[in-house]
Amino acid sequence: MKTNLSKKIPVAVLGATGAVGQRFVQLLADHPWFEVVALTGSVRSVGKAYGETRWVLDGDPPETARNLIIRHSTPDLPAKLVFSALPSSHAKEIEPRFAAAGYAVCSNASAYRQAAGVPLIIPEVNGDHLVLIKRQRAERGWPGLIVTSPNCTTSGLAMTLKPLDDAFGVRQVFVTTMQAVSGAGYPGVSYLDIDGNVIPYIGGEEDKIENEACILLGHIENDSRRAADFLVSAQANRVPVFDGHTLSIAVGFERKPSPEEATRVLVDFPGLDLPSAPPRPVLVRSEADRPQPRRDRSTAEGMAVTVGRIRECPILDLRMVSVVHNTLRGAASGSILNAELLVAEGYL
Amino acid sequence: MKTNLSKKIPVAVLGATGAVGQRFVQLLADHPWFEVVALTGSVRSVGKAYGETRWVLDGDPPETARNLIIRHSTPDLPAKLVFSALPSSHAKEIEPRFAAAGYAVCSNASAYRQAAGVPLIIPEVNGDHLVLIKRQRAERGWPGLIVTSPNCTTSGLAMTLKPLDDAFGVRQVFVTTMQAVSGAGYPGVSYLDIDGNVIPYIGGEEDKIENEACILLGHIENDSRRAADFLVSAQANRVPVFDGHTLSIAVGFERKPSPEEATRVLVDFPGLDLPSAPPRPVLVRSEADRPQPRRDRSTAEGMAVTVGRIRECPILDLRMVSVVHNTLRGAASGSILNAELLVAEGYL
Amino acid sequence: MKTNLSKKIPVAVLGATGAVGQRFVQLLADHPWFEVVALTGSVRSVGKAYGETRWVLDGDPPETARNLIIRHSTPDLPAKLVFSALPSSHAKEIEPRFAAAGYAVCSNASAYRQAAGVPLIIPEVNGDHLVLIKRQRAERGWPGLIVTSPNCTTSGLAMTLKPLDDAFGVRQVFVTTMQAVSGAGYPGVSYLDIDGNVIPYIGGEEDKIENEACILLGHIENDSRRAADFLVSAQANRVPVFDGHTLSIAVGFERKPSPEEATRVLVDFPGLDLPSAPPRPVLVRSEADRPQPRRDRSTAEGMAVTVGRIRECPILDLRMVSVVHNTLRGAASGSILNAELLVAEGYL
Amino acid sequence: MKTNLSKKIPVAVLGATGAVGQRFVQLLADHPWFEVVALTGSVRSVGKAYGETRWVLDGDPPETARNLIIRHSTPDLPAKLVFSALPSSHAKEIEPRFAAAGYAVCSNASAYRQAAGVPLIIPEVNGDHLVLIKRQRAERGWPGLIVTSPNCTTSGLAMTLKPLDDAFGVRQVFVTTMQAVSGAGYPGVSYLDIDGNVIPYIGGEEDKIENEACILLGHIENDSRRAADFLVSAQANRVPVFDGHTLSIAVGFERKPSPEEATRVLVDFPGLDLPSAPPRPVLVRSEADRPQPRRDRSTAEGMAVTVGRIRECPILDLRMVSVVHNTLRGAASGSILNAELLVAEGYL
Repeated sequence: MKTNLSKKIPVAVLGATGAVGQRFVQLLADHPWFEVVALTGSVRSVGKAYGETRWVLDGDPPETARNLIIRHSTPDLPAKLVFSALPSSHAKEIEPRFAAAGYAVCSNASAYRQAAGVPLIIPEVNGDHLVLIKRQRAERGWPGLIVTSPNCTTSGLAMTLKPLDDAFGVRQVFVTTMQAVSGAGYPGVSYLDIDGNVIPYIGGEEDKIENEACILLGHIENDSRRAADFLVSAQANRVPVFDGHTLSIAVGFERKPSPEEATRVLVDFPGLDLPSAPPRPVLVRSEADRPQPRRDRSTAEGMAVTVGRIRECPILDLRMVSVVHNTLRGAASGSILNAELLVAEGYL
Repeated sequence: MKTNLSKKIPVAVLGATGAVGQRFVQLLADHPWFEVVALTGSVRSVGKAYGETRWVLDGDPPETARNLIIRHSTPDLPAKLVFSALPSSHAKEIEPRFAAAGYAVCSNASAYRQAAGVPLIIPEVNGDHLVLIKRQRAERGWPGLIVTSPNCTTSGLAMTLKPLDDAFGVRQVFVTTMQAVSGAGYPGVSYLDIDGNVIPYIGGEEDKIENEACILLGHIENDSRRAADFLVSAQANRVPVFDGHTLSIAVGFERKPSPEEATRVLVDFPGLDLPSAPPRPVLVRSEADRPQPRRDRSTAEGMAVTVGRIRECPILDLRMVSVVHNTLRGAASGSILNAELLVAEGYL
Repeated sequence: MKTNLSKKIPVAVLGATGAVGQRFVQLLADHPWFEVVALTGSVRSVGKAYGETRWVLDGDPPETARNLIIRHSTPDLPAKLVFSALPSSHAKEIEPRFAAAGYAVCSNASAYRQAAGVPLIIPEVNGDHLVLIKRQRAERGWPGLIVTSPNCTTSGLAMTLKPLDDAFGVRQVFVTTMQAVSGAGYPGVSYLDIDGNVIPYIGGEEDKIENEACILLGHIENDSRRAADFLVSAQANRVPVFDGHTLSIAVGFERKPSPEEATRVLVDFPGLDLPSAPPRPVLVRSEADRPQPRRDRSTAEGMAVTVGRIRECPILDLRMVSVVHNTLRGAASGSILNAELLVAEGYL
Repeated sequence: MKTNLSKKIPVAVLGATGAVGQRFVQLLADHPWFEVVALTGSVRSVGKAYGETRWVLDGDPPETARNLIIRHSTPDLPAKLVFSALPSSHAKEIEPRFAAAGYAVCSNASAYRQAAGVPLIIPEVNGDHLVLIKRQRAERGWPGLIVTSPNCTTSGLAMTLKPLDDAFGVRQVFVTTMQAVSGAGYPGVSYLDIDGNVIPYIGGEEDKIENEACILLGHIENDSRRAADFLVSAQANRVPVFDGHTLSIAVGFERKPSPEEATRVLVDFPGLDLPSAPPRPVLVRSEADRPQPRRDRSTAEGMAVTVGRIRECPILDLRMVSVVHNTLRGAASGSILNAELLVAEGYL
């Protein structure tokens, strides 16, 4: 998958003023293949220089983006690849316009994740689902395309389950999540609600986890996607953590592995040769008290999932805990990795 | 169970300078039946006035306790009822000395929770287990007695499961806990470890939850205790919450109830007529985002368990979330309620 | 100031659905003199039962208020005393309408705090300023009246300075505040902004502190208020604390007191005989590390200011630290205490 | 000050297992001039591989240090430059032994900061104080030397004051600090003490701030150090922030500058050409709500001090707010920068 580019590919970020949009801009500032040439935002910010809008991440916006003038989210941008950080309701209408106008859209929104013919991708997990694009183009008549990345929590779950499923056949999954506040965007959650508290509900999240995981671990048959048929039972909690989702998982398999066998297949899960791909997508820690979101979320630039506490379950086969960086692997970086795969596979 | 006392019963607190010990002292200050007349502490604090030792709870120590001189934890105290807030390793040796010397020991330590003949009690759940005392005395030759209260998390789990078990027969329980920092005592957890973080491990906790729940829901047969035979799979996490444990629970039953049926039996779970007993041991909230530890832990003076999000589980029968106040119902108040039951039942 | 009421005075809360409004409703639920008979709210909530609106404080809304139907903030309420928790911009227009219609308005808003003829009152500090009401009525032609309570931070500062000023003459005051998040209302501050952070700015706060302190410690001359002429230099910070403002204070006096002399006059500052008044308005703690907002804010039902670390200043005369409960003494309870003073003084 | 080294200088870290020691090891892992060849620790850890000891910082210990065997803190190390992260009580005895044995000791401990002949250095502020080493060696007969770096908070204060003092003459300084928890080391502060709280006291801190600031801004006269004679009044608070101290400062000058003039001299404060020195030691932000510790502490690798809210003071001349990274500029990185200056100036 070696890719040499003589010059950088011009890209745009749709919805660049929100928290996820800012992450895209931050991450793309030094990207070896991509160069941000356009940013779009809400009507309120159109016409302003990007550097004048409120930066909610730590640090400052990249110098290269400060002087870009924020544009409308209409398909008249000087880029053929666009990253969508639009709210899902806006994404629903706007992303197809870009695909119809010939743009490749790498979306972080949930609007088209479960739509027929739209790949929902984690490159290391199901990069082969990109073949759906052929059908997408044929059925929708788009010269462009839409590729989506999964819900932040599902990213962590699917990356943990994929090598285990390949080796032992996943049958049942209980997952209780402890999710970071940054997952709710900005301003998102009030300090008065979450300080010293747990909120045992995140609207729509459990459905996404239960459905997207099966799509990601599904198979391509006759150019169609067939979702995996294991069962997932999810309960989503918000906890006072800034970044990094923690998943407490119990799994039943077709063939019960020992904790050592499970560890081995997780550690051996192969990485890809793409700029944003970590050498190993999954890391396993042996300390009794890891993974922890604050200590492990940033491993491999926030692109590796860290798994620990792999042990026998008194009811099903194994229990384990995973941590994923929700705004990197689980959002902006995940979409950028998808775009890299598109380039490497010749879709761009 | 009406009890009229002509004068208050003198009581002592063993290990009164730790966080749990201080809670005992605080709660007993205005108790209608009990009067604190003696406090014990570590060698380092013996001989000091209680008011001179470092108070770690919010507010101040009660006036009535300030001038008590801290004594050794030896059975020469002017009280026949003692509350033990000793560390488990000390409790192991010290509590039997008191029982052998004729004291009734209401212990919050884990040392004797699973010992044969020692009742592990939540009055509303299994007050009938007090009959074990007869055997305890016979076998150990103690004129006194030891009664224990369960692990803080197990309190919340057992109170949630008991009415459901009676009505529908619990078979399997998955529980992921999000536990407050106060459960680790003082100084306990470093801010640098838990700030903005989740620690997915609490030493020994999962074993306690998995075993104590079955003891509490067990039955008395021929003066012996027979543990319930359902299976529990627990994963314990520490989260940055001051007080209040949250439990994410999935349950399989012999007979599947609807969420409405489960709600009804929880709401109908009867309370006891004891000073520290809440009118209703379990409250059910219907809001999508409750219970929350910070908002619900103090309901009914921290003695009620609040349950919410009762819904169908894609794999087992029901999912739900419970919150229990870990240092009140789950520790000091729980032991005091046990003592009240001992009095009401004539054991004192 | 003994007051015996044969029946409770009916009162209303304007802006009852915000965080301060909810505090009023919570505090008035068991008030010995007042009974809440009407609640007003924004157009969006008018017509709903109060129990249906989102309760943002811990616990639940009082039973007695749940069924009250939220009304418009217009002067047609079945109460002659109204507590205003309106945002300042609304208070500016609405409060005079009530005063003109004969209502006594006890306002927590900043709109009229510095207006001529409108008393800005902390009963223990400057209850005598109520005489301004005579002029207020004369000049404005109101049968009713407006009385205001100070900014939350200023409450703590003025109560600390008042006894010191009486005894030693305050000349210069440096104050750096560390203010709780609840002071910004609900939803107020995003967790992403304040988590593990300090925000060294609160809009308008420093001006309020610098000006209101001088008004509160001012004197009445010829029915007019003359502000004290000491200088205040304030810097306001938001810190990740739920409730309770902390003030780091340095003071220069006309006559330099020793720390012991200052302690004495603070401790001797007399309380009032009103239902919400604490026995002692100021408490002094001698521990090196007190006062602390979480441990001291609730002293005397959140109505006492706690002062500590009274020591010599290398530049001015003394340094000290004060803690005040910003939503009790510094907001709702403060206004209720003002209303009690109005009753006791015969203004109602 | 160009320095070219043909090979790296071997260095050791004394007290490498504590939080500051770990920071030294982390920062030195990729240092262009220095190479860690030895680590020392307490008796309990001597003989263990460094990778086996508990790592308290986020992430993992550097690969290059994992296999180093922890040694005693005795002057038999294969390095001539040692960084001391020893507790002050140990530093008092151990550091002179190293200096007497010919080692150059760059200490982060407070033991010798105020000792005659021992330079207390921030290179950009008072690098010229290194001339004291000549006297240090003469008077103490050491072939080696000790150089110290200031208290973390003082670093931020001195860097803010230095350019202002040079231009306008500092006369009086009021400073209230809001200090991060990491400043207390590990395990340091209990979550139960600092969660949602402010602790208005840090033992010894105020004295250090008041004295060290004057030493740092002092002058060398006849090979002696003469402390600056302005007055500092400090009040130190611990706040629930992980890293980054915030200082609220009021300053009186000999000649009052406008905020714009002050901004200019701060921005123009020149940097040094050393590997760990930032291009500009002081950055000024113009936003109303900056600097903030979480957003600004890491600027320029945590080596720049960020200043904001520069405005007129109602009593003295100016008020402003500074943020300094307490464990980088204010601790380990500060000592490393001192060592770089020693090398560049030929002391090594």
